[in-house]
Amino acid sequence: MTRRTFAQVSAAGAAAQTAKPEQILMLVYPGMTLLDLIGPQQVFGYLMGVEVSLVAKSKDPVTSDTGVRVLPDKTFAEAPLAPDILFVPGGGRGTVALMSDTATLEFLASRGKNARYVTSVCSGSLVLGAAGLLRGYKATSHWAVREVLPSLGAELVNARVVEDRNRITAGGITSGIDFGLKLAARLRGDDYARALELTLEYDPQPPFRSGTPEKAPPNITAQARQMYAPLVKAAHASAARARQSWHPQP
Amino acid sequence: MTRRTFAQVSAAGAAAQTAKPEQILMLVYPGMTLLDLIGPQQVFGYLMGVEVSLVAKSKDPVTSDTGVRVLPDKTFAEAPLAPDILFVPGGGRGTVALMSDTATLEFLASRGKNARYVTSVCSGSLVLGAAGLLRGYKATSHWAVREVLPSLGAELVNARVVEDRNRITAGGITSGIDFGLKLAARLRGDDYARALELTLEYDPQPPFRSGTPEKAPPNITAQARQMYAPLVKAAHASAARARQSWHPQP
Repeated sequence: MTRRTFAQVSAAGAAAQTAKPEQILMLVYPGMTLLDLIGPQQVFGYLMGVEVSLVAKSKDPVTSDTGVRVLPDKTFAEAPLAPDILFVPGGGRGTVALMSDTATLEFLASRGKNARYVTSVCSGSLVLGAAGLLRGYKATSHWAVREVLPSLGAELVNARVVEDRNRITAGGITSGIDFGLKLAARLRGDDYARALELTLEYDPQPPFRSGTPEKAPPNITAQARQMYAPLVKAAHASAARARQSWHPQP
Repeated sequence: MTRRTFAQVSAAGAAAQTAKPEQILMLVYPGMTLLDLIGPQQVFGYLMGVEVSLVAKSKDPVTSDTGVRVLPDKTFAEAPLAPDILFVPGGGRGTVALMSDTATLEFLASRGKNARYVTSVCSGSLVLGAAGLLRGYKATSHWAVREVLPSLGAELVNARVVEDRNRITAGGITSGIDFGLKLAARLRGDDYARALELTLEYDPQPPFRSGTPEKAPPNITAQARQMYAPLVKAAHASAARARQSWHPQP
């Protein structure tokens, strides 16, 4: 599949192709969970009339939490000032580290201020929150760390995808596919999004009924919470530091 | 998340970590659909006691069908001769081109012969088939191109994940997540796979009911079939060429 082929099935897509491409900026950083990024990137990449760019501090390869190396397309300095979509994927320790990274937070604050949509999957919302971009917004995150959101000024909602004005945040890792399709529908209409869902053959059949803390067997959930406890603690500490650095809200 | 943290929740995982790592080889090539690869890679990457490698002809960056550049870890020459898992992702024109690429087919045939599991997502099964690896096996593929499988000697089964002895093939793009979790359960047991499903927060909520040709609105399916028609035709031609190059089955 290529995005060009979609012109054949969508008048909206074909029309979008003739306009100035919409700019989609997707942050990449060491330790990110790559599936958080590639779920929506695969969807956005099949849209007509978009330029999807992976953005990082430098153009050096970025290694994911499971060891895949991807190449950024643009540096922070090269990224457009008013993107149509600003997106942040989540991860583990690398994501919590990013909550204290001044250059990244300043980049996100500057682009988020002028973006049409400010978005995240998984713990990416904690980084948006640390940049001050979720103050006064409903938001969600990976189930293990979402309790940190209120201390970043957000109103926590336990849903797979949370839309509040131009902020769209999604839950853990695989929720990025649902998020991507929902945003595709906003940008190009429901029929285009239906064609994408069909292309992705998104008729999921999870082999276990363990996709949320409520549905998983209690012992599995308890073990996972224990595993995540140090990460949650570190995220709370990062959130406290981030709040101190915020300028008064405009 | 890192794979190390899973040692805390899984005795099986901790035990596997002390043994010689299992080798997982994942083919990468120009035009691949990256979500086909990253769905299962994210799952495999969270397993204890594995070495997951992206394998390609050279170590030059490989560009996906939606423009993401990833770096291979190993060349064909560097790849172990008897991997535990051999995996091929799908794609569009790049995948059909690969069905006629002698170096790739020879590589897959040589590793597939000795692999513990021979696997694919999406149209990756057409490449396995072109390499002669699905002769006499039940298999599936992306809905748009799965009709090509019988001409590669496979018995087509319309299911999201098809397991026949050590061949495991999955349907279109997002089926890679279901596939990855099923294989994780085979390798490390159901509880480990449940913990992974929880980590991935795999409680999908497709925004439309359009994930299969049967479920999508008829006009969307018809348009998509029309879009895919040239690709299906090219795949049939590649399959015919591949059959001519096969050695007699051992």
